Amino acid sequence: MANISKKVSWSGRGDDRGERTPLLNGAEDGKYNRHVLHFVFQSLDYDNSENQLFLEEERRMSHMGFRCLETRRWVICGLIGFLTGLIACLIDIAVEKLAGYKYSAVKQNIEKFTEFGGLSISLILWAVLNSAFVMVGAIAVAFFEPIAAGSGIPQIKCYLNGVKIPRVVRLKTLAIKVFGVICSVAGGLAVGKEGPMIHSGAVVAAGVSQGRSTSLKKDFKIFEYFRRDTEKRDFVSAGAAAGVSAAFGAPVGGVLFSLEEGASFWNQMLTWRIFFASMISTFTLNFFLSIYHGKPGELSSPGLINFGRFDSDYIPFESFIFFSFHFPGGVLGALFNVINYWLTIFRIRYIHRPCLQVMEAMLVAAVTATISFAMIYFSNDCQPLGQDNTEEYSLQLFCADGEYNSMATAFFNTPERSVRSLFHNPPGSYNPLTLGVFTLAYFVLAVWTYGLTVSAGVFIPSLLIGAAWGRLFGILLSTITSSQSIWADPGKYALIGAAAQLGGIVRMTLSLTVILVEATGSVTYGFPIMLVLMTAKIVGDYFIEGLYDVHIKLQSVPFLHWEAPPTSHWLTAREVMSSPVTCFNRVEKVGRIVDVLSNTSTNHNGFPVVILSFLQPGKICGLILRSQLIVLLKHKVFVERASSRLSHRKLQLKDFRDAYPRFPPIQSIHVSQDERECMMDLTEFMNPTPYTVPQETSLPRVFKLFRALGLRHLVVVDNENRVVGLVTRKDLARYHLGKDGLEELHLAQT
Amino acid sequence: MANISKKVSWSGRGDDRGERTPLLNGAEDGKYNRHVLHFVFQSLDYDNSENQLFLEEERRMSHMGFRCLETRRWVICGLIGFLTGLIACLIDIAVEKLAGYKYSAVKQNIEKFTEFGGLSISLILWAVLNSAFVMVGAIAVAFFEPIAAGSGIPQIKCYLNGVKIPRVVRLKTLAIKVFGVICSVAGGLAVGKEGPMIHSGAVVAAGVSQGRSTSLKKDFKIFEYFRRDTEKRDFVSAGAAAGVSAAFGAPVGGVLFSLEEGASFWNQMLTWRIFFASMISTFTLNFFLSIYHGKPGELSSPGLINFGRFDSDYIPFESFIFFSFHFPGGVLGALFNVINYWLTIFRIRYIHRPCLQVMEAMLVAAVTATISFAMIYFSNDCQPLGQDNTEEYSLQLFCADGEYNSMATAFFNTPERSVRSLFHNPPGSYNPLTLGVFTLAYFVLAVWTYGLTVSAGVFIPSLLIGAAWGRLFGILLSTITSSQSIWADPGKYALIGAAAQLGGIVRMTLSLTVILVEATGSVTYGFPIMLVLMTAKIVGDYFIEGLYDVHIKLQSVPFLHWEAPPTSHWLTAREVMSSPVTCFNRVEKVGRIVDVLSNTSTNHNGFPVVILSFLQPGKICGLILRSQLIVLLKHKVFVERASSRLSHRKLQLKDFRDAYPRFPPIQSIHVSQDERECMMDLTEFMNPTPYTVPQETSLPRVFKLFRALGLRHLVVVDNENRVVGLVTRKDLARYHLGKDGLEELHLAQT
Repeated sequence: MANISKKVSWSGRGDDRGERTPLLNGAEDGKYNRHVLHFVFQSLDYDNSENQLFLEEERRMSHMGFRCLETRRWVICGLIGFLTGLIACLIDIAVEKLAGYKYSAVKQNIEKFTEFGGLSISLILWAVLNSAFVMVGAIAVAFFEPIAAGSGIPQIKCYLNGVKIPRVVRLKTLAIKVFGVICSVAGGLAVGKEGPMIHSGAVVAAGVSQGRSTSLKKDFKIFEYFRRDTEKRDFVSAGAAAGVSAAFGAPVGGVLFSLEEGASFWNQMLTWRIFFASMISTFTLNFFLSIYHGKPGELSSPGLINFGRFDSDYIPFESFIFFSFHFPGGVLGALFNVINYWLTIFRIRYIHRPCLQVMEAMLVAAVTATISFAMIYFSNDCQPLGQDNTEEYSLQLFCADGEYNSMATAFFNTPERSVRSLFHNPPGSYNPLTLGVFTLAYFVLAVWTYGLTVSAGVFIPSLLIGAAWGRLFGILLSTITSSQSIWADPGKYALIGAAAQLGGIVRMTLSLTVILVEATGSVTYGFPIMLVLMTAKIVGDYFIEGLYDVHIKLQSVPFLHWEAPPTSHWLTAREVMSSPVTCFNRVEKVGRIVDVLSNTSTNHNGFPVVILSFLQPGKICGLILRSQLIVLLKHKVFVERASSRLSHRKLQLKDFRDAYPRFPPIQSIHVSQDERECMMDLTEFMNPTPYTVPQETSLPRVFKLFRALGLRHLVVVDNENRVVGLVTRKDLARYHLGKDGLEELHLAQT
Repeated sequence: MANISKKVSWSGRGDDRGERTPLLNGAEDGKYNRHVLHFVFQSLDYDNSENQLFLEEERRMSHMGFRCLETRRWVICGLIGFLTGLIACLIDIAVEKLAGYKYSAVKQNIEKFTEFGGLSISLILWAVLNSAFVMVGAIAVAFFEPIAAGSGIPQIKCYLNGVKIPRVVRLKTLAIKVFGVICSVAGGLAVGKEGPMIHSGAVVAAGVSQGRSTSLKKDFKIFEYFRRDTEKRDFVSAGAAAGVSAAFGAPVGGVLFSLEEGASFWNQMLTWRIFFASMISTFTLNFFLSIYHGKPGELSSPGLINFGRFDSDYIPFESFIFFSFHFPGGVLGALFNVINYWLTIFRIRYIHRPCLQVMEAMLVAAVTATISFAMIYFSNDCQPLGQDNTEEYSLQLFCADGEYNSMATAFFNTPERSVRSLFHNPPGSYNPLTLGVFTLAYFVLAVWTYGLTVSAGVFIPSLLIGAAWGRLFGILLSTITSSQSIWADPGKYALIGAAAQLGGIVRMTLSLTVILVEATGSVTYGFPIMLVLMTAKIVGDYFIEGLYDVHIKLQSVPFLHWEAPPTSHWLTAREVMSSPVTCFNRVEKVGRIVDVLSNTSTNHNGFPVVILSFLQPGKICGLILRSQLIVLLKHKVFVERASSRLSHRKLQLKDFRDAYPRFPPIQSIHVSQDERECMMDLTEFMNPTPYTVPQETSLPRVFKLFRALGLRHLVVVDNENRVVGLVTRKDLARYHLGKDGLEELHLAQT
């Protein structure tokens, strides 16, 4: 039944290997092995180290003190929401301005040359403009901050899951991300500006909550209490939610996104704060955009994207048609992911130099412009210009006066507007052939674009593809049945198609449903949307995982899912744990600590502290982290110096917080030969009550404990309370359910 | 700082005391002490007992087997949603019919006597009709199933929290609940039919998921795998969500309600299933109601209550006015709770006999009718009958022809319709005096009504009170500023007032916001609604807890909140645990087991199993539950019989599942004197890897472990792994934050 592939033997296992280059966008050696988990990723620690210092501080704090802390948390969440809203506003206005200039220029040029002939000059102008925008964006990303590439959602998923992706929440990343997304959307790529908002919100949160910026070397000396992984993670959840909320005008969807991706332990107060941040974010964005659009106070169209309200109803029979959409959605979604998967492997192997990456991005931009142009040129799909026509850049091209080219509306627009047109334009706005060709072309472009070294999201392209074939289906249906009254509105088929396609690609059921419901403002469509998302997910899962999971797996991140694989009851802590474990004594020689920390072949991050005993593993009495030991060594907290330290101040939690989160490497700390002979008393600094499990504990039980409490290290003990092993994230992430039952991934040494 | 009141000494502490009469609606002895936690409440066990039997079963199961289980879970959730929707439909139609007959009869009578005089006869008719309905409902509740009284939300909160309230999820309870709520709403009480839907959904879930009904003595032999607390709880969450969803047409709100109240460990798959159940429930209700109303397929007005869409916008300046609503909302809400608190204590002391309870309910019904009548009679608030007037029972009374009495619309209607009128009737429909008097009268009636021995909810009355003063405020505002254009719509003030009032009374921020947003279908108002709910909660919390928490506390339920009180870092497991602990040996004498289980002064429910040792506490090697021991004794699984048992079949998990959840008391199991001398081997049946903590673990840490994993027993060990104590729910629930810091509740002996 449970088919366990053979274990690889490895020496010197450790939690991870210090801060290294991020791999999320290209393995260093250009090789890729999909059965490997990388050691480069550190884990975050969501379990407070309740050592004496911590307990003393907590006990000193009065009830009032805790109230103040709570208030500060609310203030921070408000700030996060406000700043995220502002950033969304900035992106929106910048994109609108830049795209506006571009389309005006190209439109004038096309109109000029339509009469004289020589439209190839227009094409060149368009392609050059696009490539230029994309080049600037790609250079920023490829040369200055590669982690800012893509939508950022996989990275934030990993962060919330407890994996530390280096540099992912830095200010510089935020700046490049925002700049990059403006360039790529203005550059006409098949991308959306919504995904990056989630990443931006998370960075804002990580920055604001720490009250300092290490990039800017500025410490405001506020919010020092929150300088640890537990608190920071909570704020990052709020930031991600605020990002979703700003992007889609979906505050509840934002909260659910954060919870679906991140929170392992649901906490009511935390959820309220996340919700608060989301609300503030939408509100801020709306408020400033309404001012920008000259209608201050008109708050009824929230979010960067608004799909408009669907007022038309559907009849129950249509539910079955809607339901059938899950199949194309799931299959096309899986196809998207499979192609993108192979493309990404190709990129990892051959396109890992920054200049190549920039060139690929420019190539895609030029090709996008060319394809768009060709399709506009060859289509003669003329539609009368209506009174209520809201297309800003309607092209007449070869159409008669008073008409416009409807293919041009689909391509000659930001993707957001195209989605909206597909949802809401009256029946007859598009002819079926136009839509068919558009679907195909855009699918190819979107697959190719995702994974480029530009900062961009995949939500909107997915929606656009789905809306196109959904609407096509609706039109065909009304042609076949020719009962115009009932099937009058192909827009609702576009909506369901968009949901099916998005579900097939990204597979986040619950939050997506809510996001789509909130973005369309129609609770009525909630049921078919949910049904189609869920079944599209099932169909897609049959072939391949969701796009984000594909990318996470491609980077060999030790990602923990919600539950242990169902057939893993065969395994116990004994088989899963790494052993032997490097332990320290309660009072340990400095030399040994330095040696252990410097040992690059093991590079452990957590060490059980044991009571000295002879010839056998010692009884556990605590757990200490590498980062804590580093701070202790840096401040030379040695027993021998205790007397002289009387004049000095005692080491405080503040010293640990100041070093957080970039603890210096052991190599940078100088320990003299004399000092090596000193002793260090760990009693005060270790966590005296780490969680432990007996060796017989089944894997699902270990997994549940680990996941529910967000642990980084779990000590395995025998029935005498002696340390026999240590379970870390990688030991659990190794097991996953393959086609033939339980499979085990290898642990890479690099 | 942390001010701990002195501990009471008590002997014989145990987890609880077997199944007893439920106390949620009246203490037995008529006395009430608010500093006591009762022993009558058993805990639920959300931690699987991973004994050998369980592991063997799990290991036997193939990947396909787990898939089937998962499919079954989805099917069950679909069924739960469907049945809950049907029940909601039944309630809605029954109430509408009955109320329709009643109002028609009274209306005709009033119209008859308006001309001749002698309206007192109409009053008597009205009062008698009301009292008759309420009497029938109250008799059903008081004599047949007292647990069906009230909204049921506190009980479901407790269940999801892990407290077993006897008889709360039985079929009989459901029947009485549904019958009771129809009677009380038709009887014109100031109640809503929404709260009971949540309870109904939970009962449906508990029944369907177990594949049998113990009330009907019918076992369908399906879903046997789900016969344990962990699985059952998950389904009950889904049922509660489906109930909310049906009541308010708010599927997302339902999911959030379940999560806010129940789930400690967020699980993605579970959440999707809950959402699925919610969606099915709303859809079913809509579908059948649309058929009933003769418009099959018109699904646009979901839920039992629909507040109608708010299309009018608000200007940012109004946000500040909306925001100011939190103060009256919080204060009035707290006042409501305080009065109801004292009233409930009065009821516990003096009105604890069923016939008294029925009489009180009838009295309230008669008084409600009288007050309503008086207010209709004395008001001369005539409004012209508009074209689009939707009032079904508009009373002309003393108004001119073509006019109707607007006070009558507020009282002569089900509360749901009244709320809708307050939200949406055009400006000028009500005069300020009418609204003021109405607010006051309805407030008094609602306070008096909640806690009666009838099945009824408090959501709608709260909304109605809030909507009334909110609209009043809006009207006054427009009078003062006399700028009709901007303040034209008092309906939006009614909405925000309703939110503030509801927030002040029940205090569930997140799910309430979403419920209100979904029920009104306006995302735009989400921000002010959230703001007002949150601040109303803060204001209200200053005075007293939320209504449901007040009632939970009044029944001395050991309810665990989300986190340990912040100032509890002073306490460690050593102070919190109960000790000494009754332990069993791995192979134990039957006589001792029977004696321990029969000891009514301790009545423990979980027993650590230890390895035999001399003179000192033994090393822990497992944990066994009372229920498991009972099954073992019943099947006489003794070592001495092992040889003869070769012919018998081996004890299987099925035997434990068949006995679940009503394990027989120890008294019903006959053990002969010979058998008392036999030995029982617990190895196969005990949980070999119970969670343990060292004695130094701080209370917040113990609390987090306990809450995150949904434990019932947590073993405290010393550093030799010897059992020194046991932490149960009551040990943690004892500590709470009072006015003067940390307080400790006493544990009652009964």
